[in-house]
This record gives sequence, C-alpha cells and structure tokens, in this order.
Amino acid sequence: MADPSLNFDIKRLGECCYPSPIKEFRFVGEDERLLFHARPKEVKAFFEAGLEPPSMELAGPREKIFFDPSRLVCGIVTCGGLCPGLNDVIRAVVLGLHHHYGVKTIFGFRYGYRGLAKRHGIPPLNLTPELVSAIDNMGGTILGSSRGPQDPAEMLDYLEELQIGVLFTLGGDGTLRGAHKIAEEAGRRNYPLSVIGIPKTIDNDISFLQKTFGYETAVAEAQRAIYAAHSEAVGAPNGVALVKLMGRDSGFITAGAALVEPDVNFCLVPEVPFSLEGFLKSLQKRLEQRGHAVIAVAEGAGQDLLKSAEEYDESGNLKHGDIGIFLRDAIKKYFFGIGMEVSVKYIDPSYIIRSVPANPHDSAFCLMLGQNAVHAAMSGRTDMVVGFWNHRFTHVPIALAASERKKLDTEGLLWGSVLATTGQPHRM
Amino acid sequence: MADPSLNFDIKRLGECCYPSPIKEFRFVGEDERLLFHARPKEVKAFFEAGLEPPSMELAGPREKIFFDPSRLVCGIVTCGGLCPGLNDVIRAVVLGLHHHYGVKTIFGFRYGYRGLAKRHGIPPLNLTPELVSAIDNMGGTILGSSRGPQDPAEMLDYLEELQIGVLFTLGGDGTLRGAHKIAEEAGRRNYPLSVIGIPKTIDNDISFLQKTFGYETAVAEAQRAIYAAHSEAVGAPNGVALVKLMGRDSGFITAGAALVEPDVNFCLVPEVPFSLEGFLKSLQKRLEQRGHAVIAVAEGAGQDLLKSAEEYDESGNLKHGDIGIFLRDAIKKYFFGIGMEVSVKYIDPSYIIRSVPANPHDSAFCLMLGQNAVHAAMSGRTDMVVGFWNHRFTHVPIALAASERKKLDTEGLLWGSVLATTGQPHRM
Amino acid sequence: MADPSLNFDIKRLGECCYPSPIKEFRFVGEDERLLFHARPKEVKAFFEAGLEPPSMELAGPREKIFFDPSRLVCGIVTCGGLCPGLNDVIRAVVLGLHHHYGVKTIFGFRYGYRGLAKRHGIPPLNLTPELVSAIDNMGGTILGSSRGPQDPAEMLDYLEELQIGVLFTLGGDGTLRGAHKIAEEAGRRNYPLSVIGIPKTIDNDISFLQKTFGYETAVAEAQRAIYAAHSEAVGAPNGVALVKLMGRDSGFITAGAALVEPDVNFCLVPEVPFSLEGFLKSLQKRLEQRGHAVIAVAEGAGQDLLKSAEEYDESGNLKHGDIGIFLRDAIKKYFFGIGMEVSVKYIDPSYIIRSVPANPHDSAFCLMLGQNAVHAAMSGRTDMVVGFWNHRFTHVPIALAASERKKLDTEGLLWGSVLATTGQPHRM
Amino acid sequence: MADPSLNFDIKRLGECCYPSPIKEFRFVGEDERLLFHARPKEVKAFFEAGLEPPSMELAGPREKIFFDPSRLVCGIVTCGGLCPGLNDVIRAVVLGLHHHYGVKTIFGFRYGYRGLAKRHGIPPLNLTPELVSAIDNMGGTILGSSRGPQDPAEMLDYLEELQIGVLFTLGGDGTLRGAHKIAEEAGRRNYPLSVIGIPKTIDNDISFLQKTFGYETAVAEAQRAIYAAHSEAVGAPNGVALVKLMGRDSGFITAGAALVEPDVNFCLVPEVPFSLEGFLKSLQKRLEQRGHAVIAVAEGAGQDLLKSAEEYDESGNLKHGDIGIFLRDAIKKYFFGIGMEVSVKYIDPSYIIRSVPANPHDSAFCLMLGQNAVHAAMSGRTDMVVGFWNHRFTHVPIALAASERKKLDTEGLLWGSVLATTGQPHRM
Repeated sequence: MADPSLNFDIKRLGECCYPSPIKEFRFVGEDERLLFHARPKEVKAFFEAGLEPPSMELAGPREKIFFDPSRLVCGIVTCGGLCPGLNDVIRAVVLGLHHHYGVKTIFGFRYGYRGLAKRHGIPPLNLTPELVSAIDNMGGTILGSSRGPQDPAEMLDYLEELQIGVLFTLGGDGTLRGAHKIAEEAGRRNYPLSVIGIPKTIDNDISFLQKTFGYETAVAEAQRAIYAAHSEAVGAPNGVALVKLMGRDSGFITAGAALVEPDVNFCLVPEVPFSLEGFLKSLQKRLEQRGHAVIAVAEGAGQDLLKSAEEYDESGNLKHGDIGIFLRDAIKKYFFGIGMEVSVKYIDPSYIIRSVPANPHDSAFCLMLGQNAVHAAMSGRTDMVVGFWNHRFTHVPIALAASERKKLDTEGLLWGSVLATTGQPHRM
Repeated sequence: MADPSLNFDIKRLGECCYPSPIKEFRFVGEDERLLFHARPKEVKAFFEAGLEPPSMELAGPREKIFFDPSRLVCGIVTCGGLCPGLNDVIRAVVLGLHHHYGVKTIFGFRYGYRGLAKRHGIPPLNLTPELVSAIDNMGGTILGSSRGPQDPAEMLDYLEELQIGVLFTLGGDGTLRGAHKIAEEAGRRNYPLSVIGIPKTIDNDISFLQKTFGYETAVAEAQRAIYAAHSEAVGAPNGVALVKLMGRDSGFITAGAALVEPDVNFCLVPEVPFSLEGFLKSLQKRLEQRGHAVIAVAEGAGQDLLKSAEEYDESGNLKHGDIGIFLRDAIKKYFFGIGMEVSVKYIDPSYIIRSVPANPHDSAFCLMLGQNAVHAAMSGRTDMVVGFWNHRFTHVPIALAASERKKLDTEGLLWGSVLATTGQPHRM
Repeated sequence: MADPSLNFDIKRLGECCYPSPIKEFRFVGEDERLLFHARPKEVKAFFEAGLEPPSMELAGPREKIFFDPSRLVCGIVTCGGLCPGLNDVIRAVVLGLHHHYGVKTIFGFRYGYRGLAKRHGIPPLNLTPELVSAIDNMGGTILGSSRGPQDPAEMLDYLEELQIGVLFTLGGDGTLRGAHKIAEEAGRRNYPLSVIGIPKTIDNDISFLQKTFGYETAVAEAQRAIYAAHSEAVGAPNGVALVKLMGRDSGFITAGAALVEPDVNFCLVPEVPFSLEGFLKSLQKRLEQRGHAVIAVAEGAGQDLLKSAEEYDESGNLKHGDIGIFLRDAIKKYFFGIGMEVSVKYIDPSYIIRSVPANPHDSAFCLMLGQNAVHAAMSGRTDMVVGFWNHRFTHVPIALAASERKKLDTEGLLWGSVLATTGQPHRM
Repeated sequence: MADPSLNFDIKRLGECCYPSPIKEFRFVGEDERLLFHARPKEVKAFFEAGLEPPSMELAGPREKIFFDPSRLVCGIVTCGGLCPGLNDVIRAVVLGLHHHYGVKTIFGFRYGYRGLAKRHGIPPLNLTPELVSAIDNMGGTILGSSRGPQDPAEMLDYLEELQIGVLFTLGGDGTLRGAHKIAEEAGRRNYPLSVIGIPKTIDNDISFLQKTFGYETAVAEAQRAIYAAHSEAVGAPNGVALVKLMGRDSGFITAGAALVEPDVNFCLVPEVPFSLEGFLKSLQKRLEQRGHAVIAVAEGAGQDLLKSAEEYDESGNLKHGDIGIFLRDAIKKYFFGIGMEVSVKYIDPSYIIRSVPANPHDSAFCLMLGQNAVHAAMSGRTDMVVGFWNHRFTHVPIALAASERKKLDTEGLLWGSVLATTGQPHRM
C-alpha cells in the first residue's frame, strides 16, 4: 500500500460561499491532513524522492459551507445486512443536519436502494428529530434495508425529482460502489449532488479504515455464543462445541471473539487455509489431552474444502457453502470412523449477532461518525466516505474505500495473539 | 388432579436420633404441611367426605436428623441437558452439607449416571467448599452430564463401595425415574441410602412444582433471539423472522418469551395444534397488513405435520423432527407459490439458551433449593424431590413428580395473555 | 393473620349487563376463589368451627361486564417513588383496555395525584396504543410521579368532569389509602367510579401479596453494587465495603441481594435490631480472620441507633436518618480507636436501583398484572387491588392491602438462608 | 508537543543473546518505529530541518531476548484505585510468560508497593496459569492494591532478595513515577532489573497513549447511572438529576458518558471552568423550557468554586472537595430562593464504575497489552511503559508517560460533539 499513486483527493461540488452556522467546534482548515503511513522510513522515502507522502483530509466542520441549509433537502438510505449502530448513525445524521445546520427536510429512503427506485412505489419517511431521538438503543434500521443494486440513472431521476442535495448511504462495499455510480451519474448530469458514504461492515473489513461501527458489538455478542459453546463442551465426555460466526472474506469477528473468550481452542478464518485431516487430527489430540474442545469458525473459512460451485448473491457477493454444517458432519464422521465417542454440539447464532443494539462505545462512535458525515456533506464534498485513521475521522474517496477488502494480517499482532491464546497449531 | 388417591407421603430411612447442628432456622415440625389444592370448594369436598385433603410436607431443617454428619459421605450427580443454575445448586448442596451440618466428604460423580457405573472408570471429584465457592456465576455443570440410564444395581454397587449415605440427583423426569430405581434397589438391599431428586427442567414442565430453576433465565435468553428476529423482520420488505425455541412437550419457554418480548406475532406450542394452511394464510394476512412478522415456535410444536417416524433418544424421549426447518421451508414455498416476495430469516439459538449462567433470581432460588435438599437428606427422607408450591419449598415423592409432564393450560391465564399479546388467531 | 374476621369481599358498582367482548380466555366464574391459608390445619379449624375459611376472588375476565366499553373513559396515575415496571403496567393497561375491550379514551394523569387536582393545571396525556407500544423497555414512568396526598373531593371533581369511569392507581400504601378515599368519596356521591389499585413497592412489603413487580429487578440491580463492593473490599488490606440499599421498613431487597451475591458477610435489616458494639466486634473478628468484609445495610436498619427526631415526609412516611453514613463513620472511628488500619469504601447506589427497566420476568409479570387490572375494572369492581397469591392473580380490598406492611419473617426460610449464607451472628 | 527534544529512546539492560522461543508472531525488527506526529506538515518540518521526526518503538516479540527464561523470576504489582481489566492484564502477563517463554516463577506482590516493602510482612502470591486462567471475568485485582509510595531502595532490596529480573507495575502516574525510581535505583546498583509499566488510568488521561484499558468499560457503566438519572428527572415535575462521575483532572469519562447517553443536558468537566451563576441560570432556562434536566459532573470540575484548602492524598494527588454535593445544595438553594419548585435527585455511582469486570473489548485490549509487556520485558527493555498509538502497541519511556496528564481538547472533536449533543452553552 506504500504506492505513491494512492490518491486521497476528495471531489467537491463547487465553491463554499455560505458561512457555517456551527458554533461548537474549532473549524478544520482545508489543509489539515493526516499521514496515511505510520512509519518514519515510509514517509522519509517520499520526501527523499521529492514527493508529498500520501495523506487524508481530516473530517470536521468547515468555516464555509457549500449548501444553503435553509433550502437543502437531504436523503439517507441503509443497504445490505443489518449491523449494530445503523439507527445510531441515522439519528446522528438527522440531529446533526437539523440542530447544527438547520436543515429542515430529510428523507429516509426505505429498504435500501430499492426505495430510491421510484417504480417500486415505496415512499420515503420524513425524518424529524422527534422520530429519531430515541432510536439509538434499537437494533436493526428503522429505514429497512435490502440487498442488490438498482439502476443509477433511475435513482438519480428520483433524487432530482425530490430536489435532494445530499445523499447519505450506509452500506458495505457493494453499496459504496453503487453510491459511486450515483455520484458519477450526477456528475454527468451536472446535478450538484453530494454523495457521502458511511461504511458499514460488521466484518470490519473495509480498507483505509482502522475501525468500523458495529464490529465491537458483534464481537461481544459472538462471545456469548462461545461462552455457551464452552459450557456445552465441558459438560459432556469428549464434548466438542462448534460455533459458526460471521465473516465471509475476513476473520476479524472470529479472531476478536477468540481473544475475548479465551476458551476457544481452534479459530478458523478465511485468511488461513487448513487441511481437513490436519484439523481433525489436531482436534483428536486436543480431546485426548483435555477431554473437550471449542471451535470458532468464520463462515468464509475453509471454502476450498466445500468445492461449492461458484454462486453469487444479489449484491454480487460470492455465495458460500456452509462450512459450519460441513465441519460438524466431518467431525462426527471422523470420530465415528476411529471409534472414539464424542459429543458434538453445533451453535449458529447467525442473525442474533448483527441485530442487537450498538454497545455504548459503538454508539458514541456512530454519533461522531454521523456528525462528521454531515460536516463533509455541508462542505460540498462528494463521492467519499467518512473514515477513521490514527484515532481521527477522515475523508476517503469511495473508489479507494471500496477497492479491496481488508484481511487479517496472518503475520500480525492480532493473529499472533489468537495463536498464542488458543494454542492451536500454526499450520493444520 | 383433585383425586383423593394423590399420595404425598415421603419415605424415611428410619428414626432420627441425632440433634441437628443447625442454628439459623426455626425448625420445621414434622406435621407442618401445605395444601395441594388452592380453592375452598376443592378442599371442602374432602372434609365433607370425611377425608383429609391432599397435602405436602413443608421442606426445611428438622430438629432431629437421621445421619451422623461426622461419618456421612454424600454424592451428587447431574444428568441430561444443561440448564442455567446447575452449578448454583451444586454449590448450595456442598456448602449446606459442609457449613451447616459439618459433612466432610462429598463426591461429585462425573458425566451423569455414567459416572455412577464403575465400569466406565470415571473417578468422582472430591467437592470442597473452596472448589465450589465461585461456581455460581458459571453456566453448565462442573460435573459434566450425559443422557440415558445405567443399571440401578451397578450404580448401587458403586455407591455402597464408596459408603455413600445420600445421593443428590439433578435431572429431568428420566433422571428422576432412574433415581427412583436406585432408591428401590437400596430398599431391596436394606442399604440406608437417601435419594433426593432436584428437578431440572428448563421447560418448566414437571408436575407438582409451580416453578423450576433455570426457566426464568431461559426465557430471558430467548427474548434476545426474539429481539434479533424482530430487528430482522422489520428490516426487510415483507420480512419474516422465525425463531425456534426449546420445549419438546410443553410451550412454557415459547409462551414466556412471547409475553416478555411483545413483538411476537405467532406463538406456536406443542399444546395447541395448528394446520399448516391455516397458519400460512394467517401469516399472509399479517404481512399484507403490517409488512413483517415474527414467529416463535417451540421445538415440539406441530409434530403431526412432520409425520416423523417415531424415534427415541438415549434417555427414552421421543425424538422430534425439526419443526423450525420445516416451517422455514414451508413459508418460502408458500409465498413463492402465490408470487409474493418475502424475506425469511431463521434463528435457532439452540444451546445458547440453556448454557448461560443463572440470572440473579434463579441463582437465589437454586441456593434455597439446594439448602432444602440438604435438610431433607439429613432427616433421612428418600425417594423424593424438593418441590415449590404456594411460594414455599416442599417434599414430593419422585413417583408423583415423574408421573406426568406439566402442560400449558390452553384455557388458562398464561396462554390467554399470549393470545391477547400476539393477537394471533385462537385456532389456525 | 389467621383471624376469621379477615374480609376479602370486593365492592362492586352494580350489575354486569354487557357481554364481554373478550375471546382469548376462559372466563372466570364469579365464585372462583383461592384459599388465603396454606396449611390443612388452619383451614380445617374454620370448617370445624362451621365457618368458611377466608378466601380471595380469582382475577381474570368475566363473562359479563359492568361498563359499556364504547362509552367508557379511563384514567391512570402513577404515584410515589419510581419502581422498575411502571411503564410495563401502563402499557398493559392501555393495550388491554384498547385491544381487548375496545375502550377508546384513556387519560394518563401526570405527576401523581397532583395531576388529578385540577388547580395544578397539568393536563393529562391521551394514552394511545401507539404512544405506549414501545415503553416496556424504559425505566421510570412516562406519566411522571409525585409524593403526597391531594384532596379526594377535588380529585373526584376532576374525574367527574372528565367523565372517567375507571381510575387505575399505581402506588404504595400511601397511594392506596388515597385511592381508597377517592373510592369512598365516589360512593358518597353515588358516582359509579371503579378504583383499581396496582400495588407498587420496590420493597416487596405489601401484605396479602406474595410478590410485587419490580422487586426482582431491584435485587438484580442491587447485586451489581454488591459485586463492586466485594471487588473493593478484597482489593485493599483490611478492606471494608458498605452498601446501603432500599428498604425503609423491610429488608427484602437487602436479604434478596445477600442471597444473590454470596459475598455479603453482614446483612443488616430493619426487622433485626443490632447493637453497634456487637456489630463492630463481629466485623473486627471477620477482618482478623479473612482480611476483608462486605456489609449490606437496608436504609431502615438500625434506626434506634440514629436517635433521629421523628420526621415525616410528604407522603406521611417516617423519615429516616442515614444509617449508611452513620455506620461508615462509626466503623472508621472504631478501628481508628483500636489502632487497626482499615480501608472503608461506601457505596450508595440509591436511585440507580429503582430507575432501571424491568427485567424480562418482571416485565411479563407486569403485563399480566395490568391485564388483570383491566378485567377487574371492566367487571365493575372497585376499591380493590390486584394481588398475587399461590401463583395466581387475585382481588384484594384496598383496606386490607394497605393495612400493614409485610416484614421479613426472622424465623423463616428466607432469613434463615441469609444467615446461613453470610455466616453472620444471629444476634449482634 | 511538536518539540524536537521529545525523546522516545528506551533503555536496555544489555545485549540480547538468547533466541526467542516464540513461534506465533512475525518478529518485530529493532528499527521498526511509529511516527509520533500525525500530520504531514509537522513531519515535513523535521525533515526540512535535517532532523529525524520523533518516533516510538513498535512493541512486539523480538528475535533475540535478554533473559534466560529458564532462570528468570518475575514480579507483578497493582497500585492505586481499581480499574476494569486489572485481572485481565495480570492473566495475560502470567500466561504470556509461562506459555510463550517458559518462565516458571512469577510472584504477585500484594496490596501495591506496600507488598514490595518487606517490613510489611506480606508474602507474595505464587502466580500459576491455573490460578489466573479464569480471572478475566472478575472485577478488581486478585493481588489487592494500595495507594502511596514506598522507599525505592527498600523495594529493590526485596526484589534482589527474591532474584527478580522483571517487575511489571500496573498503575497511574504516581505508580509510574515510583517504578521509574525503582529502575533508577537498580541502575545505580547495576542490578539488571527490567521495570515495565502498564499504564492504568480509568480516566484515560495518560499522555502519549491514545487509549488506556478500562476506560471504555467505565463509560458504559457511567451510562447506567445517567440512564437512571434521566428516568428520575423526567419522573418528577421540574426534575433535576445530578450524576457525579470519576475524573479528577480530566473529563474523559464524563464527556464519553454524555455522548453515549444523549439525555445529558449539562456536562461539566475540569477542563472547562464555569461560573455557578451562569450554570444555575442556564439550568433554570432549561427547566422552564423542558421541565427536566440531567447534569453529569466530573469530580474534578468546578474546583475553583469549592475554594478548598489544598490537600494532598497519600499518592500525592491533590484532594478535591465534593463538587457533587456542592452543586446539589447550590441548586436546591437557588431554586428555593427564586420560589421555583424543583425535585433534585443526586446520584453518585462512585466505586461501582471502577469495580466491574472489563467489557469484551477492554478484555481483549488487556490481553494484547499484557502480551506486549511480556515481549518488552524479555527483550531487556526497562524504565518504559507499553503504549497504544495509531492503532498499534508501542514502547514509551516512563519519564515521558508520567510527565503530564492528558486533558480534553476543548476545541477538539470530542468536546465539540459533547456540546452539540447536550446543547449546553459553550460558556457559562
């Protein structure tokens, strides 16, 4: 990622000619930026080559804004799977627009991009401070959601019809790519639309963000399933408890849960391939030594073992066979085959993990995330997401944020801590 | 149940000739009893017929005890599926025996009745106050558990060998029937063994007990799954969320969860048969009116729909086909057939519900339950369980407690409240 | 309490001439009653004396009702200190009146009886199903509350003006006495007003009720304070942590918390007097043996030690000096005096315990309590509270319910369990 | 802080001549560092001046280590007030030393530095993996703690006697200064002692660390108190609820709680002075407009109002008068004076906030913190703390970490979000 071609430039709709009504904050200067690289050697190399090191804009309120708040109409849409904190972000955006800038009309489009395509006939909600003031302790999203893209031109037609100046999109990389297309279409039409993405990924796997909302809550919830698994495993002779957790392409939730609940003995993630035989032999050894075992497996782990035909879901994500069921059956078969009695319990908490309310820390994070999204929009920025880097909120072009999924660094500290904690073999 | 032949007489091993070392309590007199019937008319009928109305012994410490604590050896065993509070009861029994009576040797048999059959070669734990003092906030059972019976004679051989005078058995009706057989075998051999059952049923379905430990915790845990289901259901157009809960023969957990989380729209329990077509049409109506629906189904509901061959598990319980999967697929098929787009989410919290630690109220209940089991044992009673009736702890013969499973009264207040809260049709 | 003069007769406003629109429940017959006494001997004595044993009406829906739901106007008021579950009861009453009986107009009087006295100029809320549907997970009361009585005649004037037929009052014994006066005033005026009390006492100290809502939640919350106290006590050399809990006249919360969190070493309640010197010496002994101690004291314990002048608060309750501060200072002084270094931490969770949302079990209890209050009101009963006895809901005259406060039976099982668990001396 | 004299050099005891037994991680190179500054302009200025920009060592395992694990003896001590996560760190250090490096002897000194001064006669605990394996869900510290310094020479005498090579100290800035003195004394004596500080401050106010353990848990716990306060405030006419939270010199907990629980209307912190009159007038205005108010005040706020004589506690911290009590009384007096009836409720959760177990995220953070402390120690570093900067663990000299307390930036994003959320005046 130390490529000098990294481009963190943010598009703007035009000159900011209105004074900000904001009083609470020190304004962020237009030249305040944050280094992308963290190490002196990396940064030095740029300077020595006569280049500016890559850096991101700092988020925050600007002294001059692009939109006239008294006439601005805004829209919000939530897409893809649920994630703890969606309602907190909706609330923060609405209250920020209303109380800080005086924006009066905010539409909440329903059921994801579907609600932005007029032909579906789903009228948007009128989001008021009263309506959203108490939604911060609710799971899910009051707007509803859906998967899959819609035609950008059709969506822009509707946005134009409603005279919307800012569209906030909460979603994962598929959603962000859709937002990028809307911004491009608006550019083609010369329609001054600010498209601000708020990255939503319970898997914590969006690049150029050190943290995404909901992840911490999801890990805490996953811990509950693992706690139960441990109770079950030790409660039976040769008890094996297997928990399947979210994480199609990355193992952050599963690795996080293994650190939080140190009773996990095997942590299986997409980034670390394993052979079925190696795993089963390690499991056998563990049972022979300790009489029980707890396994946490990310839904995207061991996909090569499943040999599933490649299928894609509506959002264009590769569909995965069910590694949980596969492992459960493989474990039973293996131990039956070697004549060793085991008691296998399978736990799939599934939607429970993503549908709970945000925990306090996530909730506060969502509040500030939404506030900074509002500041970015009012300043006329577009085609960007609000990121988090080096403990500060930043602006990141959608094209970068949606470019590639973040993965566990299998030589890094997090995975090293997992290996140290579980005691599992490094290679199976 | 108003049968005058109801027999609450408790067997005793012999005369109590040792003074109780207990100082904390008022002793319970040997003639203190509690009416089984609650209504004046029922009780009056007995008196008018010249009969004593059925009544249960009150639990509690007795002034004279049967066993010499200084020489007494006790055993505890936990059988069947996990249930919140098992460790609390183990702790209460051990601390009660040790601190209140001065019993020094308490064996914890491992993995259910299997640990009582010597040929399995599983040595019992030596349970000390230190070992158990902090287990009250742990789920599961530190002794482990297993399903299925063992030969009563073989178990008694081992109990005799270890010179055990009291055996506490924690388990459901299968376990209690096993305990009864051990007590009978001891009687045949004239071996003075007190067998005290502590009824464990997360389903709250043991007769002659108004309440069993762990049920309340299980309902609170089930609520979490239903909360998630509601988030998912409202989060999608025509969202349907289906939660499968425990309850093979009774719907207490499912009904309880429906009262606790009033977002449930359909509560399906074993006691109330329904036609698949009636249910699906009601669901369609609900979706047409409200756009989403939450369904809670007990694992034992709608078994006639499954037409499963009758199979029995190791404990002799009838095995059930999976009504959750069945309904999920039936719902998808039905709405596909009528061309109505729905989004179906299936949640099976399974073991999570039974493996959590007891909540504070259950924990205190377990403490008193265990203390009263100890008092009963020390007084030389046997072949009984500790019950709870009219807000007091009681003694109930095992034969009665294990005679028939308690069911939801479908004309009673609890089910009426469920119907009122869900608004579901009374017959489907 | 075995007095034959106990009178559980419930007043009725007149003949029930409307058919109930309720469909969900089996109707409760007008002669279905529940024995007050639990023991055969007690009941037998009545029959042998040719008397009917005292019994309470069973709560539940009646086949015929007194009020015409289409014209009925109802009111609700919450008085006194907060208690977990108030909003659950409000919700249950409103939804029960609306959905089960079709009552359209329900006024929520604000800030207790103050909102019923028109001269305060506080207009009532119009309670609709929409307004209350999601309040069941909120602490406090959406109606607000206040302490102290108002003039019954003035309140009735306002009730008449608003043409209210049923008034639901949620409050403690002071509130219930006020409700009784309103009912009497209505009787004098021949105004057909049903006054239904719903007993609210976080202290669980209302007579003729085996359980009141919010108590269980309060105990669970108190446990958190005691957990912290234990962490603090063991974290310092000779650490002493003192927690003050609610309970002006009874020690139910403090005793309950001691059972739930077995780290309590001294449980001090109003029902068990103690000498300061005896307590301090016992504490010293404990510290010498174990190096730390946790003390839970009910706010009403040890009042004789405080020698406070007798003061009464607005509701007519005797005001108490602060036993927590008193003990904290006495402990510090004593150990300073004997030259023993101790580290004293004082924790007063105060309002935190009563302001939290009801836990799941309390929430379901409140739901059924409110539903039964509605049934009682619709049948034209008045001057009564909904009680809970022998696992069923009942009707109890206000005069009885408010007659005397329930106390811990210091020779009973609960207190015995506390002594057994804490290991504290029986007399200090 | 952009001073080029910032010195992040870490002292080392000598050459590392043993190979690391660690297998799980990629080793961190001795030259891997992290920039202290975040902005391109700041870093550029150093390069343009021909200077290296200040940077910190990255934490993590090194390929060669200084100590021979087979002969190494380690010690751990916890000092000062409790903080969520202490036991998690102890556990991580012990398991890391034992499982990763094979260190066999680890002493846990009891009751802070007091346990390191031999004359107090408090023998250390022998910390084994078995002893610590399950302490991660316990509040407090199993080692106990105490405040105040001890003589460095006396402590080193004992460390030498026990042949201790590494001392881990968990504590705040007073504790770290004490650790620095121990390291200096060891240097004077040429005794090869590695002193590794693990910064503990529930207030999150240690410089050069972007995050400290326990803070997040404390904020979540504080939220509970504020939730109760809000219930109380809205539950009474002109209800005012005042919550006092931790934070002697910084308002991080109070500000964090205000973001998490958006019902706070006034957030008072040490960094933002206010006039009593200004505050009371603002409060009056709020009550007149909305009828209730919630105030969160940090214990160190408004100290100038208290005019307290300057007193210092045992650890050398300035003692503060009680701003909570002061404000409570001032509010009552003010509104009594202007004849406006208010209902004031005061909540001081005090120790409850710091004595709870770490939440899942803090728990995982503590795990990695402890592991990195172990790596640093084994590499022979000393007189340093483990820090957290730009999402990575780092090494920071104690002298820097203990140099000055971090404060809320009153022009920064966090405080801006608080002002935006509470709506309170910027100056009172």
